[in-house]
Amino acid sequence: MTRTITAEDIDGLARGAAVLGTGGGGDPYIGALLARQALGSGELTVVDLDDVPDDALVLFVAMMGAPTVMVEKLPSLAEVVEPVRALGVHLGRAVTHIACAEVGGVNSTIPIAAAAALSLPLIDADGMGRAFPELQMVLPTLSGVTASPLAFSDEKGNTGVLQTVDNSWTERIARVACVEMGCSVMISGFSMSGTQARTSLVRGSLSRCIAIGQAIAAAREDKTDPVDAALILLGGRELFDGKVVDVQRATTTGFARGRARIDGDAGTSLTLQFQNEHLVAEKDGDVLATTPDLIMVLEGDSGEPITTEGLRYGQRVRVIAAPADERWHSAEALAMVGPGYFGYDTPARRFDGTLSTAGASEPVA
Amino acid sequence: MTRTITAEDIDGLARGAAVLGTGGGGDPYIGALLARQALGSGELTVVDLDDVPDDALVLFVAMMGAPTVMVEKLPSLAEVVEPVRALGVHLGRAVTHIACAEVGGVNSTIPIAAAAALSLPLIDADGMGRAFPELQMVLPTLSGVTASPLAFSDEKGNTGVLQTVDNSWTERIARVACVEMGCSVMISGFSMSGTQARTSLVRGSLSRCIAIGQAIAAAREDKTDPVDAALILLGGRELFDGKVVDVQRATTTGFARGRARIDGDAGTSLTLQFQNEHLVAEKDGDVLATTPDLIMVLEGDSGEPITTEGLRYGQRVRVIAAPADERWHSAEALAMVGPGYFGYDTPARRFDGTLSTAGASEPVA
Repeated sequence: MTRTITAEDIDGLARGAAVLGTGGGGDPYIGALLARQALGSGELTVVDLDDVPDDALVLFVAMMGAPTVMVEKLPSLAEVVEPVRALGVHLGRAVTHIACAEVGGVNSTIPIAAAAALSLPLIDADGMGRAFPELQMVLPTLSGVTASPLAFSDEKGNTGVLQTVDNSWTERIARVACVEMGCSVMISGFSMSGTQARTSLVRGSLSRCIAIGQAIAAAREDKTDPVDAALILLGGRELFDGKVVDVQRATTTGFARGRARIDGDAGTSLTLQFQNEHLVAEKDGDVLATTPDLIMVLEGDSGEPITTEGLRYGQRVRVIAAPADERWHSAEALAMVGPGYFGYDTPARRFDGTLSTAGASEPVA
Repeated sequence: MTRTITAEDIDGLARGAAVLGTGGGGDPYIGALLARQALGSGELTVVDLDDVPDDALVLFVAMMGAPTVMVEKLPSLAEVVEPVRALGVHLGRAVTHIACAEVGGVNSTIPIAAAAALSLPLIDADGMGRAFPELQMVLPTLSGVTASPLAFSDEKGNTGVLQTVDNSWTERIARVACVEMGCSVMISGFSMSGTQARTSLVRGSLSRCIAIGQAIAAAREDKTDPVDAALILLGGRELFDGKVVDVQRATTTGFARGRARIDGDAGTSLTLQFQNEHLVAEKDGDVLATTPDLIMVLEGDSGEPITTEGLRYGQRVRVIAAPADERWHSAEALAMVGPGYFGYDTPARRFDGTLSTAGASEPVA
């Protein structure tokens, strides 16, 4: 099935992407601006994974860096297109499709801008079904798709193309270049065939973003609960309802790292730990949910998603959790994106509180 | 004129290059090993700048990083050749000639190894007439030759190609990548035509290295003074004779930075400040010579050059100075490689103690 995206879809899509982005991916408002600018009064063709030819050349396009910096550096369309151009030259083949590496503010709408500017179709899919802070953290890595050749470029006109021995080395070298170049660059990589894209991407992500974003807006209009509306589509549950009382945040080595405390009405307290994205939710000492499952913070009444850099003292928020794509719960995936990788001394726990172990989930007393 | 280099020339060349390398460029012994390995029992064609065709494609090949690390990481021939290969693919043209970016231990012999392994002629010239720590610090930068596209690669198999807005940005991005990749990478860049090479390179550098190296060896054999023999060919003067009594050295942000104190017999003292290369020589508070002129440390009796990382307590040394290529004394050049650039609060002073000002040298009282 082929559908189209116009400027009118962007608000819903950006809102839904900010929900699935679990606090990361940058300010959805910034990303929406750029996508609307690229679409103008036109429309963008969005294709299902099943309709991508086997021999297609699919590329991810994304912004890499600290979301705290992205907010202040809206990229130009020329900048968004540059890494795709550089990579196309390097590969010596015509790029046929653009895909999102992750869902999350800027990185759901940057690919829309890139696809529109390049007149290429966008695939209704993404590489994670959520957002993660490092570039090797996509499902294609687990299927053996290489991040490199990977192109990166900045707003000054500097560009690089990396060819590395594994995806972690792509991340390491691109990250230090990104930090040196001002903590925010555009990247393109993970070149895949249509067959590889079908095996490794999460299906229907863009449609899901639009559905979630529109459900939140519709609930507001109908005076029903927007958070409940989102939860139904997410298949998730509410973890906590309270007020933000403390936020510690620092932009270090290209990431926005920190923690937030939310106090409930009955003397209870929830702590969120994040590195661009929310990674661990702990209530009065008990871990309720961890990466790779989704931990999201929504404004209490409006259901508007709040990014980690948007967290402020005094906000009334509801913290919700939802299941990640099941492939994220394999042992190999947990080694790459589980709490231990990020330095948190706790086992991976699913959104429903059960432990996440390789291929099995067991209830916890 | 075309000459050839065989394995027998390497000792002399490496010694002379270590003299002109003013303490930097890495251990000449390491570089000589690699060049001898590449040459085997064969010979390498070395061509004069005047014999390079106007439309040649000339590339620099060099090792980038902290000499303190280079000593422990002897590159393989495959590693030396990789950035040239990557850059050739990027440029889509056949490389015709290899040239040295600088003279100095490893970076005079790495290009020999690369040229021999690639069966390409090497040009009897270099980009500095000495060694400097940052990659934009070559005379071609002053003639508008761009460092990028610049390829870099490590021993693990990671490679990158940069295209930047100026040569300082090439340095900045390549440097952070180099540090992340283990503080030592092979690079190739500054692609030039034969015409550009003739305008911007220092002529006869390799012949000069061999002549200096052989003169030092011959003086030892003849029981004459090897340091005097070097000074005649360098057109320089002796600054100080003494014993190394203190060396402070740290490898930071990819450079070996530090200072050394040398005490003379008559209660006098000379301080050398270095960043990979010796940059400032100060005697009892008076600055005797600074970058861009050459400050070199030779073993007192043997005339063997001592690199900054080879300085040790108790060594009897003679510190000598010699004029740099005159192009290094322009105002534009001094902004790039003068003492101020390196953070030393002293004006540029020529090897003979006069001030270096744009286009003129004035005696100092």
